[in-house]
Amino acid sequence: MMDTSDNKAAVVLLSGGLDSATCLAIAAKRGFRCYALSVNYGQRHSSELLAAQRVAKAFSAELKVVNLDLRTFGGSALTDDIDVPEEEVEGIPVTYVPARNTIMLSLALAWAEVLEAGDIFIGVNAVDYSGYPDCRPEYVNAYEEMANLATKAAVVGHRLTIHTPLIDLSKAEIIQRGSELGVDYGMTVSCYQADEQGSACGVCDSCRIRAAGFEAAGVVDPTRYQSA
Amino acid sequence: MMDTSDNKAAVVLLSGGLDSATCLAIAAKRGFRCYALSVNYGQRHSSELLAAQRVAKAFSAELKVVNLDLRTFGGSALTDDIDVPEEEVEGIPVTYVPARNTIMLSLALAWAEVLEAGDIFIGVNAVDYSGYPDCRPEYVNAYEEMANLATKAAVVGHRLTIHTPLIDLSKAEIIQRGSELGVDYGMTVSCYQADEQGSACGVCDSCRIRAAGFEAAGVVDPTRYQSA
Repeated sequence: MMDTSDNKAAVVLLSGGLDSATCLAIAAKRGFRCYALSVNYGQRHSSELLAAQRVAKAFSAELKVVNLDLRTFGGSALTDDIDVPEEEVEGIPVTYVPARNTIMLSLALAWAEVLEAGDIFIGVNAVDYSGYPDCRPEYVNAYEEMANLATKAAVVGHRLTIHTPLIDLSKAEIIQRGSELGVDYGMTVSCYQADEQGSACGVCDSCRIRAAGFEAAGVVDPTRYQSA
Repeated sequence: MMDTSDNKAAVVLLSGGLDSATCLAIAAKRGFRCYALSVNYGQRHSSELLAAQRVAKAFSAELKVVNLDLRTFGGSALTDDIDVPEEEVEGIPVTYVPARNTIMLSLALAWAEVLEAGDIFIGVNAVDYSGYPDCRPEYVNAYEEMANLATKAAVVGHRLTIHTPLIDLSKAEIIQRGSELGVDYGMTVSCYQADEQGSACGVCDSCRIRAAGFEAAGVVDPTRYQSA
């Protein structure tokens, strides 16, 4: 599967959430032919993956879903039977999935190598999610450094770039940028405990950050809530 | 799952081959309580995984097998329908799996984080497999650097070490070291196209390197061959 068009290929990690949808819109706007990658890491609900399908289709991106059951290891409220917290928490959230971004970037790297793509996009954000170690710029830089020693492309001198277009943006700025690019956020699901239709709980950490983002951005919140 | 014994926990990547079996023996000898991790990345045969089970049991290591079908991406003779070459090849072998060590180390990192283990062992070797970019010391060092920025442990200042005890050893030296440590190489499978009983083809790249290693080490080769 070689790059046969004039557009450069890029692999874009896509969760079905608000951030990664915006990240895909930015990659497409920059002229990349986008290959979207979702990792099904044993989430409690499949509504995120359905959201990823809708978002990929909206931006004409090929979507691949890799099944990788991280429940094998345990250690997160997203994949274990720990309760999702309903109020703000200090430090690293219990919804943190061990090594999640490292694993997702590694899968993106494998696909990029097969596609001969030199660009990977990930919608990490250091503002709202500062509790996650693998969302920090120094982590992403170290990952890029490692990736450039890991692959055949690196051996023949092709540089691989990890793009993090959202890393310095607030949630409100992400929503404003995505709205300018035509992202329909009604297609996205951010909630940690969305129901099968993708309706949000409205009380988890992710729901609170998302709702505050729409309010601060001055953009009408298209989220469907379970109580509505 | 906390470390409750006096021994420090280590995650050891285990393929069922000769190198990773030796690596596990070395980790056990150094006093680590070993957690063995095998990745079932859509190999053509399951005999490697059966070998991993035998080896893990021999060294009293808990074994977890993670299913991750890399055939989704294509790009390797080990997971695609490309023929395995039967003579020596220049450069990067077609049996190279894209980003394999990066993915395997990332899964080990996730389990290490849950176990609160600060040590990961991987049996990469830069001598016989110099065609693989992700077997080189500079790659492993960059991975370790990245891993130390990726996890909760890193945030609280616990150092993570990636151990590569085989990296500078020839195949003969690996076999000598393992034999001293009591590894029964009859339990291991190196062949790229072993049959279901784990009998080797005797002609692929991996079989040739293995047979030459036993000869150079002056150790009787316990490999069962399909023609035998």
